[in-house]
Amino acid sequence: MKYQFSAAMRDMKPSAIREIFKSLGQPGAISFAAGNPAPESFPAEQMAAIAADIFENRASVALQYGTTEGYTPLRELVADRLARRFGVDTASNMTVITSGGQQGIELACKTLCDAGDVVICENPSFIGALNAFRSLGACPVGVELEEDGISLEGLEAALKAHPNAKLLYLIPTFQNPAGITMSLEKRKTVYALAKQYDVMILEDNPYGDLRFAGAELPTIKSMDTDGRVIYCGTFSKILSAGMRVGYVCGPEAVVQKLVVAKQVEDVHTNLFFQMLCAEFMKRHDLDAHIDFIRSLYREKCGCMLETLDACTPSDVTYTRPEGGLFLWCTLPKRIPMADFVAEAAERKVFVVPGTTFNCDLSAPSQSFRLNYSTPSNEEIKKGIAILGDLLK
Amino acid sequence: MKYQFSAAMRDMKPSAIREIFKSLGQPGAISFAAGNPAPESFPAEQMAAIAADIFENRASVALQYGTTEGYTPLRELVADRLARRFGVDTASNMTVITSGGQQGIELACKTLCDAGDVVICENPSFIGALNAFRSLGACPVGVELEEDGISLEGLEAALKAHPNAKLLYLIPTFQNPAGITMSLEKRKTVYALAKQYDVMILEDNPYGDLRFAGAELPTIKSMDTDGRVIYCGTFSKILSAGMRVGYVCGPEAVVQKLVVAKQVEDVHTNLFFQMLCAEFMKRHDLDAHIDFIRSLYREKCGCMLETLDACTPSDVTYTRPEGGLFLWCTLPKRIPMADFVAEAAERKVFVVPGTTFNCDLSAPSQSFRLNYSTPSNEEIKKGIAILGDLLK
Repeated sequence: MKYQFSAAMRDMKPSAIREIFKSLGQPGAISFAAGNPAPESFPAEQMAAIAADIFENRASVALQYGTTEGYTPLRELVADRLARRFGVDTASNMTVITSGGQQGIELACKTLCDAGDVVICENPSFIGALNAFRSLGACPVGVELEEDGISLEGLEAALKAHPNAKLLYLIPTFQNPAGITMSLEKRKTVYALAKQYDVMILEDNPYGDLRFAGAELPTIKSMDTDGRVIYCGTFSKILSAGMRVGYVCGPEAVVQKLVVAKQVEDVHTNLFFQMLCAEFMKRHDLDAHIDFIRSLYREKCGCMLETLDACTPSDVTYTRPEGGLFLWCTLPKRIPMADFVAEAAERKVFVVPGTTFNCDLSAPSQSFRLNYSTPSNEEIKKGIAILGDLLK
Repeated sequence: MKYQFSAAMRDMKPSAIREIFKSLGQPGAISFAAGNPAPESFPAEQMAAIAADIFENRASVALQYGTTEGYTPLRELVADRLARRFGVDTASNMTVITSGGQQGIELACKTLCDAGDVVICENPSFIGALNAFRSLGACPVGVELEEDGISLEGLEAALKAHPNAKLLYLIPTFQNPAGITMSLEKRKTVYALAKQYDVMILEDNPYGDLRFAGAELPTIKSMDTDGRVIYCGTFSKILSAGMRVGYVCGPEAVVQKLVVAKQVEDVHTNLFFQMLCAEFMKRHDLDAHIDFIRSLYREKCGCMLETLDACTPSDVTYTRPEGGLFLWCTLPKRIPMADFVAEAAERKVFVVPGTTFNCDLSAPSQSFRLNYSTPSNEEIKKGIAILGDLLK
């Protein structure tokens, strides 16, 4: 029979990254394409001990249905940590568990946006978020990303041009894909602009824990005096990505509605791993574990930058991230991006072309994303050298 | 600030069942309200051994990102079982893993329906599905459920009245909430009608494995010669509900689109438990384990029916299910339903009123749902006796 898809889903394609991810099986392939945490960052031994304990003593809870809001001890531990670590006023906000950070983003949009509504985003931005907005019929509108974060002139122009904008989606810290961090000044002004134009902010902070250089900056959520910011976080980059445990913290009225939306998506997040996360936070020093990951990525990012510095011609530019998983490399006009990405793939080095992250899918890009958390230092050196050869 | 919710979510309330579920903490409460599998049905010891093995030998895979379609060995095992056990032609269909059966239902609607589109359902029907449709702006339209399944006259009338109906949502086997099973004749006619009016069928079969009386009936999916049926299943009732592992099997073009929708909801389902399910199916005899659950529910359902037969006046009627988790009890007009449910709750016995399961939320109901899988036989006897007292 002939299938008729919903208007929002009709033209949607699988994320280019997930597709590249699938074709990485070939031997000798070097991937800078994924956003996978380093396998060394999973505290598998500690998790195994906790899992054994849960099976032994609390299996009938862990294997049974739970509440949509999430496992209460985990919600409390996450809220405590958000208050302590990220300055979130958790007394006036509600924290619930989601199936990865991804689900929080999608649910926030589903809760607030009708088809046709505009979501203002940094451009480029996280493909998973852009596609979540698109899948609900919402329209991502991009604002230029500068070295210190979103362009304020661009943001104000977008807010004026789209009075029906419902949401301002931002990754202020170690942005995906660009690795850029928004300055303190800009954070304050962005919040003020959101207030002035009465738009909600969706602050996505999956990498906030992973600073390996420079000084900490407050989250936008920590400045939220009028319940305007929905904050998404995740355990994906600090404990395990495969377990799919994230969280949302925001004004109670909004989060309660978001929980209703979650209920009909997956009832609740895998309860066993929610319990495991809570127990990990009780038994172990999560911050010490994160320090270890930070030192890992400091080294990997340093290795990638060093190799880039040594191997690439001077008209190729790239960001120098202070944390997170990515850096963003921009080519001079003389090099056609599509050819470069294809040639790299032929030489078994995979990167994600910048077009993937554009709000406007027909817009060109001279940039591509490089991930340093997944490959080994050896792979980084070898792969970047191959890219350097191609760029000469 | 004043929050503005999306049109579809604005009026949505949390499921009454999940809400009742939350208030069950009080000592002495007897719940016939949930749809929880019996805790004895979780093979916790075997699962613990497999989990230890995964942590020991494959942690770096299990804790890392996976593909949206699901863990390949599990997809293959599920497809094999669907072919063998439920007559599904898996060669012409694609099987993917979802976060519980719930997600498959929601994704099917998201993939096929625009806001305002009609989904024809049995009335009453599964609240989780109805709310999933509503959360996407789709409109559940109910067709009367008879003793042998959906009314064929009602179905044809609905198909004529709603030429824009995109989906026909059915739970043909041990229906939730009514415990009714659609006859073979009706299955054939329903498929023929769907073909005649060119509408897709969403066959939800979470309880299909749990037959404890009567003869097996073929799934509607097994009759699907033109790629018209999307089939949802789950491990929730046969291994663990809390792990949230389900699956969808359907025509490739539709399931591929559904995978794109899943990608932006949660990237993929908890990979560790996908691997655990696959390994369980390899190491153990899943069908033997299911036989054990069937005998458990045969006894529990028998106990509930026996107590109902003994304790309730003759003008109270109820279904006599051949499998699944629920039976459906209908009160005579002399008893106001809301009062009855409230009085039962006062005496710490919880049931779900039939209005919860109506497609038309303003329609009245003289029925309520009873679950026998969760309570012990003692609780069943005691709780039903209390209800019997109230009904006299």
